[in-house]
Amino acid sequence: MAQWQLDEMRFFDPDPGVRRLAYELYRQVRDLPIVSPHGHVDPALLADDSAFPDPTELILIPDHYLFRMLYSQGIPLEALGIPTRDGTAVERDHRRIWRIFCENFHLFSGTPSAAWLAYEFVEVFGLPEKPHRDNADALYDALQAKLALPEFRPRALFERFRIEVLCTTHAASDPLEQHQKLRASGWKGRVIPCLRPDAAFQLDAPGWRAEIEALAGAANIDITSYDAFIAALQNRRDFFRSFGATSTDQGVVSPCTHRLSRPECEAIFQRALHAKADQRDADAFIAHMLMEMARMSIDDGLVMQIHPGSLRNHNREIFDRFGPDKGCDIPLRTEYTRNLQELLNACGNDPRLTLIVFTLDESTYSRELAPLAGHYPAMKLGPAWWFHDSIEGMRRFRQQVCETAGFYNTVGFNDDTRAFPSIPARHDLARRIDADFLAAKVSRNIIDFTEAQTIIHALTVDLVRKAYKL
Amino acid sequence: MAQWQLDEMRFFDPDPGVRRLAYELYRQVRDLPIVSPHGHVDPALLADDSAFPDPTELILIPDHYLFRMLYSQGIPLEALGIPTRDGTAVERDHRRIWRIFCENFHLFSGTPSAAWLAYEFVEVFGLPEKPHRDNADALYDALQAKLALPEFRPRALFERFRIEVLCTTHAASDPLEQHQKLRASGWKGRVIPCLRPDAAFQLDAPGWRAEIEALAGAANIDITSYDAFIAALQNRRDFFRSFGATSTDQGVVSPCTHRLSRPECEAIFQRALHAKADQRDADAFIAHMLMEMARMSIDDGLVMQIHPGSLRNHNREIFDRFGPDKGCDIPLRTEYTRNLQELLNACGNDPRLTLIVFTLDESTYSRELAPLAGHYPAMKLGPAWWFHDSIEGMRRFRQQVCETAGFYNTVGFNDDTRAFPSIPARHDLARRIDADFLAAKVSRNIIDFTEAQTIIHALTVDLVRKAYKL
Amino acid sequence: MAQWQLDEMRFFDPDPGVRRLAYELYRQVRDLPIVSPHGHVDPALLADDSAFPDPTELILIPDHYLFRMLYSQGIPLEALGIPTRDGTAVERDHRRIWRIFCENFHLFSGTPSAAWLAYEFVEVFGLPEKPHRDNADALYDALQAKLALPEFRPRALFERFRIEVLCTTHAASDPLEQHQKLRASGWKGRVIPCLRPDAAFQLDAPGWRAEIEALAGAANIDITSYDAFIAALQNRRDFFRSFGATSTDQGVVSPCTHRLSRPECEAIFQRALHAKADQRDADAFIAHMLMEMARMSIDDGLVMQIHPGSLRNHNREIFDRFGPDKGCDIPLRTEYTRNLQELLNACGNDPRLTLIVFTLDESTYSRELAPLAGHYPAMKLGPAWWFHDSIEGMRRFRQQVCETAGFYNTVGFNDDTRAFPSIPARHDLARRIDADFLAAKVSRNIIDFTEAQTIIHALTVDLVRKAYKL
Repeated sequence: MAQWQLDEMRFFDPDPGVRRLAYELYRQVRDLPIVSPHGHVDPALLADDSAFPDPTELILIPDHYLFRMLYSQGIPLEALGIPTRDGTAVERDHRRIWRIFCENFHLFSGTPSAAWLAYEFVEVFGLPEKPHRDNADALYDALQAKLALPEFRPRALFERFRIEVLCTTHAASDPLEQHQKLRASGWKGRVIPCLRPDAAFQLDAPGWRAEIEALAGAANIDITSYDAFIAALQNRRDFFRSFGATSTDQGVVSPCTHRLSRPECEAIFQRALHAKADQRDADAFIAHMLMEMARMSIDDGLVMQIHPGSLRNHNREIFDRFGPDKGCDIPLRTEYTRNLQELLNACGNDPRLTLIVFTLDESTYSRELAPLAGHYPAMKLGPAWWFHDSIEGMRRFRQQVCETAGFYNTVGFNDDTRAFPSIPARHDLARRIDADFLAAKVSRNIIDFTEAQTIIHALTVDLVRKAYKL
Repeated sequence: MAQWQLDEMRFFDPDPGVRRLAYELYRQVRDLPIVSPHGHVDPALLADDSAFPDPTELILIPDHYLFRMLYSQGIPLEALGIPTRDGTAVERDHRRIWRIFCENFHLFSGTPSAAWLAYEFVEVFGLPEKPHRDNADALYDALQAKLALPEFRPRALFERFRIEVLCTTHAASDPLEQHQKLRASGWKGRVIPCLRPDAAFQLDAPGWRAEIEALAGAANIDITSYDAFIAALQNRRDFFRSFGATSTDQGVVSPCTHRLSRPECEAIFQRALHAKADQRDADAFIAHMLMEMARMSIDDGLVMQIHPGSLRNHNREIFDRFGPDKGCDIPLRTEYTRNLQELLNACGNDPRLTLIVFTLDESTYSRELAPLAGHYPAMKLGPAWWFHDSIEGMRRFRQQVCETAGFYNTVGFNDDTRAFPSIPARHDLARRIDADFLAAKVSRNIIDFTEAQTIIHALTVDLVRKAYKL
Repeated sequence: MAQWQLDEMRFFDPDPGVRRLAYELYRQVRDLPIVSPHGHVDPALLADDSAFPDPTELILIPDHYLFRMLYSQGIPLEALGIPTRDGTAVERDHRRIWRIFCENFHLFSGTPSAAWLAYEFVEVFGLPEKPHRDNADALYDALQAKLALPEFRPRALFERFRIEVLCTTHAASDPLEQHQKLRASGWKGRVIPCLRPDAAFQLDAPGWRAEIEALAGAANIDITSYDAFIAALQNRRDFFRSFGATSTDQGVVSPCTHRLSRPECEAIFQRALHAKADQRDADAFIAHMLMEMARMSIDDGLVMQIHPGSLRNHNREIFDRFGPDKGCDIPLRTEYTRNLQELLNACGNDPRLTLIVFTLDESTYSRELAPLAGHYPAMKLGPAWWFHDSIEGMRRFRQQVCETAGFYNTVGFNDDTRAFPSIPARHDLARRIDADFLAAKVSRNIIDFTEAQTIIHALTVDLVRKAYKL
């Protein structure tokens, strides 16, 4: 049976000199705490602190990076136990699903998922066997046995992972019950919420009305006007801040920014309340709310994030049957120079704002994002995101961004994951790739070793703490 | 006189460890047969099996990669013997043309053409001298002497090249006479056609009417309606299949897909028959025919290919005087996420469809194509195409595609050439670059050597046979 | 105190074999003269030949690459002594500004500015100390002492830098007084002007009317019609040529080219004269003037350059208070295939035209620009520009361009700078990166060493002299 190759020098340049430099840099940050300023872990995990039920539930079912790859090779989502919206039966035998996963493990060769899983199996669970048809059952049993132990409960892992802070993402209407429960429990782990009000901003989405009602309930404000809506939103910002929130996030198709007049806002909002808003209204409202969120951030100090350019739920059949986040979100070409101009002209010179911008369109790294972040004091660049949170992807990010924006207009690493046990794997990989990138620069005399030491520390903890005010 | 440097380690990483790994991987696939699932060799070459007339006719005149580069440096196409449409005189002294080619050989430094030609000269013709002003005549004579030998006839080369299957591309109206002749000859080489019905789909092209008439004749169907057109097309699909075809291909400016209603189809088709179709009709019809070809593929099992994004005949003077395929086709920015959505929603989840998509816009590799192929079961990615079928181009393809789509949602290599003697050179280069890419991954402990062995075999033969049903 | 690491092997591949090859190639061109065919040095520097006043005035204030990075990290431009438009007070203590620069020098880690400054400090000024909070004053004094010496006057540096020719850029209305003064001085240095008539072509810009009046005065032609405008422009082309000019340049947002009819030109021009031209008129006029400039180039032999795709003065507050060229110009996605088609169809096959095209949109290198330059005899590609004039940027340019366009459809290096003492640093860096790129190709047996020697010489001097007719 193949053993995982978790070489201590993994991911580093094969040249012995560069490799040695990379390792020296990596060693300086390897054991630093994990600062996780943006992600999608369910806080209930930590609030309940129950044992993970089984390996399939732990690893495969919550991770659309994994099951979308199996799906792409013709394995139905039903066979992988992905729950359907209408409750149609799906495979319930998790051991059987685990076998499919192990039999098809070669599909992940060379993907970041394989690198993360290797770390999880070896470092987190102490099981250095690579999944394969022949060891599927043994591995399932071994993992199952581990999960029953107290040291594999979520809080124990959180502490073992040395997580300094973990940020979880929530709708504006979210009462943050799990955060309340966490706080009440007396457990010391720092878990804070990030406000992502997308559902309340998408006027033309089927769920908008329900979200507005939930928001009204949460804020205890009757949302019958645009002003009331803004008041409710401010209420939620304050509420999230009371739970330690330092940031907001917005997922938008386009990062177009444009302030509407007060009467325009009111007119659009009334149309939406009467279910008469069209696509044009919805787009205008989102562009306006980006302006408005920046204004609010200047007032209350919450760091503003924008994650644009994903066309969600591209595959309507999968969406209709299984719902969102099933690996069917496909990036779009994205424009920042003109789209962000109004927001940056309004707030980009204001030292009170921190605006962190992400992209799925790598052609914008050197063309638009690095020049913008290399000029506007308020703007910083988020790390390589989603499909680009990978070895080659991170390298392209650094290669295309850092000569123009410098290292200090970036904000370190985000794991952005809902797969809790993969968190240390992701941070370890990012630290290695940064170390390797810097080692190559040192070996070419572009920077010296002292600079590289300062930079690797900055990328690992300093920049992220500063940018996210943690 | 400079000798060609056909180092056995060519194209591999200079690091000794990586180079050794690359060579070991390459050796495992070096002698595997050539599977050529897409290309533009004229089947008459193999049907006639005549000797190639002379070096210029063999190498330069059919290869627009070569003469467009000479043209870009101010050498008129007339001086290179490229035939004119109106029969205006061009250089007929092929030895003289050959001299121009040799004198300007430095223009190809670092291009894939130079790498392919080195292989052809050394490995195919046993002439390791690099073309130069001073050896032009001697080289011409030496090549000429080789071409007269029976072992340099097309079929002998086909067998020596170990071509398992060669696919040639033809219009829907093509009677496939050369394939009939090949079949009748009793020769064992497997040469199969691919159906490329572009000429019948471009309603506003000057040659459309003539193609429809030819199609009607070939199918023996009077094409007076859209339904008759579809029937004729199905007839040709069946006819091509009877000659072993396993695939179709479409060249489109944009991969926009959109099904028209039956009355819309009929109305547009009637306007076209009355020479009243405009650009909008033509675009709508192409978008519809992509949907229709996918439907037909689900029915009859032909693999569907799309090659979008080339603006053909950009230089109108050259087109008017010399015709198409003269090095004047220039890529355009191409969008896939929205354009393919309708087709993928209609057929992308259907296991009966294989849709192979290509691009000339490398910015779509990581942004659109890898995420799409990494999700939809029907969709696979064709290899680095045309200008990107090069050492750096293939490397970018692998770097930008494989972390998201994996290796198993790609389909191996296509030589896509009309230059018959360059076929083994192109496959050898592709195998080397894949081996080098995988060796780098092994040396960084991203994959292990066993995985790399499996993958290099898959990329060389397994994936292409499976994707193209060969 | 940290010393600069000006390693003789800097920027080269760490692999010993590749490094040795790179160094051998570099040594062959290291001492060749500097040909600077495009840039923004103020010719008054050389006409006056006065001592540079102080380090801050020499290095920081004219270099928006430097102060925009400081600004991006929250340091006000006022604190950096950048002059305001309305004369509002800014910091006048240049030593104090210098301290800010030195204290924040880490912001430039890994940027090309740091590489250039290292060369300037060590090679030009003989001061190998890296700027830092603790040596700011000492460095200021040491530099100040150097600047007072005759060997650090502009002409002495020009000669020491071995500048064969320096091209400076000027508006159409510029009387070229400094060039007249230079010529009259009897000094032998070759400094020639390049005509950049943008201000006269932007009909809707606030300064257009003033530029037209200045142009009329310079040409001594009353510009009351389009024909008179063209006559004035031709007059200035001739005037610039009389000062040795060999080229023109145009900065445009989009490279759209389209010839207007004579009546359309006249109508638009009259609207502009009456301050009634709108954005659409302005865009149409620019597209037309690209056609017209190409026509004029065919007549008078001036090489034509196009620098498209920068959205100037993105930050309006900075523009209003400090004016243009303050680091607020942000690139836009740019399209060439369709936009240049009309111009290339009209003039691209004409051997009398040399059209050098630049880009800030790297996604166009392999997709559009290399295929165009690899076909049209008139078109050549300018080097990696602005944000991409960097180590990684130059490498991407070569990797993405040279396989398709070859090396011989590129035109060597442009420093494009207004920072006079950085010129040798920039050329040295470019020569090193080209040598390193070629060494990697040699070490992979893609080209041989003899070819690499020819190419490095071509990239350093031959191609630039030929393309710019120097």
